[in-house]
Amino acid sequence: MAGRSADDDDRGGTVVTPSAEFPPLTPAEVDALRRVGAHWRVGVPPALPVDPTLDRYRHRPTPGRFSRLAPIALFRPAPGAPAGRDGLVAAEPANQPDSPLGRRLGRVRRVFLGPPLASAAVLHERMRKLVALPVLSSDLLSSVAYGPEALLTVLVLAGSGALGLALPLSAGLVLLMVAVGISYRQTIPAYPHGAGSYLVAGDNLGVGAGLTAAAGLMLDYVLTVSVSIAAGVHAITSALPGLTPFTVPLGVLVILLLLAGNLRGVRAAGNLFVLPTYAFVAAVLGLLVVGYLRAAGRGFAPVAPPVVPATQGLGLLLVLRAFASGAVSMTGIEAVSNAVPAFRTPEWRNARTTLAWMVAMLVVLFAGLTLLIHLAGLVPRPGETLLSQLARVTFPTGPWYAVVQVTTALILLLAANTAFNDFPRLLFFMARAGHAPRRFLHLGDRLAFGNGLVALAATAVVVFVAFGGHTGKLIPLYAVGVFLAFTLSQSGMVVHWRRHRGDGWRRRALVNGVGAILSGLVLLTAAVAKFIEGAWVVVVAVPLLVLLFDRIHRHYRTLHAALALRSPSPDPAPPAVVCRPAAGPPEPVAAPADRPVEGGELPQELRHLVVVPVVRLNRASMRALAYAVSLGRPTLAVHLAPEDAEADRFREQWRAWGDHVRLETIVSPYRAVVGPLAHYLEALQAAAPELVLTVVVPEVVLRRPWHRLLHSRTGQRLRRALRALPGVVVTTVPVHVPD
Amino acid sequence: MAGRSADDDDRGGTVVTPSAEFPPLTPAEVDALRRVGAHWRVGVPPALPVDPTLDRYRHRPTPGRFSRLAPIALFRPAPGAPAGRDGLVAAEPANQPDSPLGRRLGRVRRVFLGPPLASAAVLHERMRKLVALPVLSSDLLSSVAYGPEALLTVLVLAGSGALGLALPLSAGLVLLMVAVGISYRQTIPAYPHGAGSYLVAGDNLGVGAGLTAAAGLMLDYVLTVSVSIAAGVHAITSALPGLTPFTVPLGVLVILLLLAGNLRGVRAAGNLFVLPTYAFVAAVLGLLVVGYLRAAGRGFAPVAPPVVPATQGLGLLLVLRAFASGAVSMTGIEAVSNAVPAFRTPEWRNARTTLAWMVAMLVVLFAGLTLLIHLAGLVPRPGETLLSQLARVTFPTGPWYAVVQVTTALILLLAANTAFNDFPRLLFFMARAGHAPRRFLHLGDRLAFGNGLVALAATAVVVFVAFGGHTGKLIPLYAVGVFLAFTLSQSGMVVHWRRHRGDGWRRRALVNGVGAILSGLVLLTAAVAKFIEGAWVVVVAVPLLVLLFDRIHRHYRTLHAALALRSPSPDPAPPAVVCRPAAGPPEPVAAPADRPVEGGELPQELRHLVVVPVVRLNRASMRALAYAVSLGRPTLAVHLAPEDAEADRFREQWRAWGDHVRLETIVSPYRAVVGPLAHYLEALQAAAPELVLTVVVPEVVLRRPWHRLLHSRTGQRLRRALRALPGVVVTTVPVHVPD
Repeated sequence: MAGRSADDDDRGGTVVTPSAEFPPLTPAEVDALRRVGAHWRVGVPPALPVDPTLDRYRHRPTPGRFSRLAPIALFRPAPGAPAGRDGLVAAEPANQPDSPLGRRLGRVRRVFLGPPLASAAVLHERMRKLVALPVLSSDLLSSVAYGPEALLTVLVLAGSGALGLALPLSAGLVLLMVAVGISYRQTIPAYPHGAGSYLVAGDNLGVGAGLTAAAGLMLDYVLTVSVSIAAGVHAITSALPGLTPFTVPLGVLVILLLLAGNLRGVRAAGNLFVLPTYAFVAAVLGLLVVGYLRAAGRGFAPVAPPVVPATQGLGLLLVLRAFASGAVSMTGIEAVSNAVPAFRTPEWRNARTTLAWMVAMLVVLFAGLTLLIHLAGLVPRPGETLLSQLARVTFPTGPWYAVVQVTTALILLLAANTAFNDFPRLLFFMARAGHAPRRFLHLGDRLAFGNGLVALAATAVVVFVAFGGHTGKLIPLYAVGVFLAFTLSQSGMVVHWRRHRGDGWRRRALVNGVGAILSGLVLLTAAVAKFIEGAWVVVVAVPLLVLLFDRIHRHYRTLHAALALRSPSPDPAPPAVVCRPAAGPPEPVAAPADRPVEGGELPQELRHLVVVPVVRLNRASMRALAYAVSLGRPTLAVHLAPEDAEADRFREQWRAWGDHVRLETIVSPYRAVVGPLAHYLEALQAAAPELVLTVVVPEVVLRRPWHRLLHSRTGQRLRRALRALPGVVVTTVPVHVPD
Repeated sequence: MAGRSADDDDRGGTVVTPSAEFPPLTPAEVDALRRVGAHWRVGVPPALPVDPTLDRYRHRPTPGRFSRLAPIALFRPAPGAPAGRDGLVAAEPANQPDSPLGRRLGRVRRVFLGPPLASAAVLHERMRKLVALPVLSSDLLSSVAYGPEALLTVLVLAGSGALGLALPLSAGLVLLMVAVGISYRQTIPAYPHGAGSYLVAGDNLGVGAGLTAAAGLMLDYVLTVSVSIAAGVHAITSALPGLTPFTVPLGVLVILLLLAGNLRGVRAAGNLFVLPTYAFVAAVLGLLVVGYLRAAGRGFAPVAPPVVPATQGLGLLLVLRAFASGAVSMTGIEAVSNAVPAFRTPEWRNARTTLAWMVAMLVVLFAGLTLLIHLAGLVPRPGETLLSQLARVTFPTGPWYAVVQVTTALILLLAANTAFNDFPRLLFFMARAGHAPRRFLHLGDRLAFGNGLVALAATAVVVFVAFGGHTGKLIPLYAVGVFLAFTLSQSGMVVHWRRHRGDGWRRRALVNGVGAILSGLVLLTAAVAKFIEGAWVVVVAVPLLVLLFDRIHRHYRTLHAALALRSPSPDPAPPAVVCRPAAGPPEPVAAPADRPVEGGELPQELRHLVVVPVVRLNRASMRALAYAVSLGRPTLAVHLAPEDAEADRFREQWRAWGDHVRLETIVSPYRAVVGPLAHYLEALQAAAPELVLTVVVPEVVLRRPWHRLLHSRTGQRLRRALRALPGVVVTTVPVHVPD
């Protein structure tokens, strides 16, 4: 971490905290703040007409349930703060919206997602290793259900004679798994607060590499959900063909259920996934044991596969494609390193142990299955998966075949959950660095990253529906993104070790270097060999995403610079006109033209003009006028009339009222209201650029939505038109109308 | 008009004026205004820091084209008002929105609709009789193209022997036309500013009758557009069968063209319609002349019609249904009476003359065509209209057949325009009485009722698309609504004459009475005989619409009462706490509990508390704080923190700044911001109900829409949450961020 530039990224390290939305000020910012504060002239502040700690009102006789005093009870003094001092804590009902509909929705939400969890509970939402293992490994382990088949499906294109190549290729994949596993094992303690490829690559190779890794990972998370759900639903519909027409709605339903489970929070989701993962592992292990016993019975002599004619020559490209297709078995291996902070303390050690277990299980299952398939002489064929064929051969009778199929379907459906763990976390890190919208920083009331979860679910639903829930069409897009991330992450680790040069850094750099080179080779292979089949989508999407992240970052940087505190000029000149009653006629003074609008942030520099647009004289406009006048600042009323006769009539009414406020009528001969009013305010500001114009707009608040259709919402349109004008403050004075 | 209750309706008579949106105050309202004004205590108002007439800045050296002084030039002193006095006029560019997109749209709009017309131009947009005749009669006259056929189509169900009944039924219809025509002729001078059924029925029979007539008319206007366009498009597609698949888009296109023409204004639309209407009348008159000459050649001996077997018995119901179907020829007869104010002065006389011409032409065309069809022995048959058959028999050779067909198609397409004249005008009258949304009062920048025109076009498009542009399915819905309006209008006139008892009132009442009875009989006949075929839709829709109008009226009445000025209590007590700097600690004073919130409309009664929610300390929050403090009223800053640590950190920053404003931190343990903040403000108000809370919210204004997606819009959500709280004023302080 030492080598990082002092960018936004530094705020708060890599720990997920509820305060991430409120990053602390840098020392330079605090310094600017201090200098700004020194220029403020407030005088003796007027006494507050109410006790803001609410303490004085707390002991009033308890009001009825629906009394207006009830909200006071929602705020109690902060623990430690003596009564009457500042610092309140909001009780949980204070979160609920005030409208009946909002309250009802809140109740429905609570039924599905559970009661809200306080920020203080964030540490308790950690996973034991035995829970973390199934939660984080379902993606990785489930891929053995289609990984060997993906490899053999390509090889068999060159005829059954080429199937012999499966064993060396699988050995290569096992080597790759172990290498990448060890590589990641080394990464976890180096980044104990979360060792995602985005952070590691960004830290060591620069922002661009980090964003590229992030883009690859994000695509793969979406594809993990879509592919796993598609394969799982296909397993279900294969068993129950009657459900086939409902493939798409079924898949969407499962994605939404996963979303709901994850919105409830990590631990609850973990509990959901413990059983099926262990059951799948047990079922496949049982399959392997029985299979090898049977094979031992015939002296491990391989059964000859059926003769399949070659449709393609056995070229290098085909072999590479087969290798790259088999490598989809490795998707999900990075899950643990991203999720380190979700483990119980000591996080990095638990995570590392879990990773070792996972890779070991992967190797056993993958190698065991591949070899057993070879011994059984099975070849891929449409209509039935290889695993199903193997289970059928191994368990010709009894319920065991069904057990293997059911657990396979379940783990495939649940594998998608890994993505639901990692995707929002990745977005959180990106958002904290300003590379993703800040809303992904927000921990929802269940301490889950609701926005990230919803974003993933929505994208996955779109992809799933677009591809009609068809696994075969999705597979070629898969694995390119994840190997991109692997390569960048492990290259980053090489740089990391070189920089730090701790004990045995050469050995560690070598391990990660090997991992990086191997991953890079697979990445190249996959991108080239599967380009036409669909990898091109990823090759196009990754740079586009990186561009988007960069644009987002640029916007936040501009915003940050624009909102940075500036030290005021050393000796602020006193305002040219004081806001005091004057006996003579108005004597406007032209401001220097180079004075920036919206420049003044010091209260003593602000010169006010309050403008009240008045359409007709009723309670609403009277309240707006009274409010404006009560501020004690110069006030001007403006009336827009469609023709002279109406303007005259209005001036007459104004005089009848008493002419308490200076009135200016503007005839708008084309009957528009908002445009001329906005331009008039612009003209006033052009005339006196140093003024802060406060436009006081009465707003009639209607309770029923259909009543709002009966009004032209001039106030809202005016507010929108005035947004563009710098230095124009809009004040909305509400008037509530009973039904 | 004398008999009307002193309701909202009285405002401004029945003339369409641009000021209708700004009704004058009643004497009682002016009186209340005067009493309210007498209670205001303003003191010596502070001098304005700028000259609101802009006069002082007008003679500055001309700035560059894009300088910020340009808007001053958009406002010139009102004619008659000496420079420096109040009263400005906005030039036309002041209407245009300030954004580049808005300006571009404005330019497109101007190309299609022409430059804006000033209010002063409203009188010039009147029609000469020779222009009014085709504009207002196209609906009425075009219906002879399908009226006789509608009658015969029903009769022929009882076999060709029943066709002889066509002549007496037609004679009855001609009698009806003359009776209704005379009846309307009498109505026009009695209501010289517009004699629509809604006004006449409402005036004399009560609001319910007026609304019922209005509902009937509105349905018929929509159906006029749909039926005429459907028939017209069908005429086109019959001639060019290749266009048949494009029936619906063609019809929609025609409706949109009509909309555009009408948005340009009345006169422009009138010019569009002069030629085709006259051409149609000329073509049909030519057809009649040649036809009767041919009939005279054979001694007026009728040709025997082909034998058609009866499919139904010749019962009374069938005869009545035939009569009611033939009565569709009369739809549109009310157009003139609704549009009296669109005529040149003297309006009522020109309108009455035009009506007489129209009815005479209708009688000639209808009677002539029916008799000629009888003489030619023609019967309706699918695939070809009767008019087409007649033209083919009469002009076996030459281009005359084509002329008849083309002009028929054109007048049918243009007939819909009558509805575009009357529908918005009806809505205007309804809106002025508070029975329709007020936006229908607005005269657009071309002096057209844009909202009403768009409403009609949209509804007609929906109906047209829903019925697939099929004339036959729409016809049964037609004519019920219009005869409902006829009956109510003429019954109203009977009451009118009885009330006024002028010269010859008995004779006039008799004429209108006969008209009312005849119309009522047709109404009953149509509703009963065509009930199953589709009239039930109208029978159901009319009461629903009346209910809707009533609900709208009730809402406006409630609103008007809620916003009515109330005289303040005679001796307003001085405010309990003056808004002055106080030396001691805050000393809140509990207000009497029965004091209504939002009660005070007097400036001296308002007690302020300014609240500034602060998320982080940057330029935006500094500006909000400076603005709040500069108002010189008690100010409180509130910070919401997700956990204690963050709250402590923020308080530290606050002290570094100088602690210029009292700060209250609220820990929101569930990380919500808007809910707890809104509830805290509610709690403050519950503690001190007499306070006016001003919430100062900084708003970062971003220029690019996609940048807005990157922000959580907390300000907007807060504003929405605070809308529900009475007495909470929201002030938005903008901070503009460069791209």
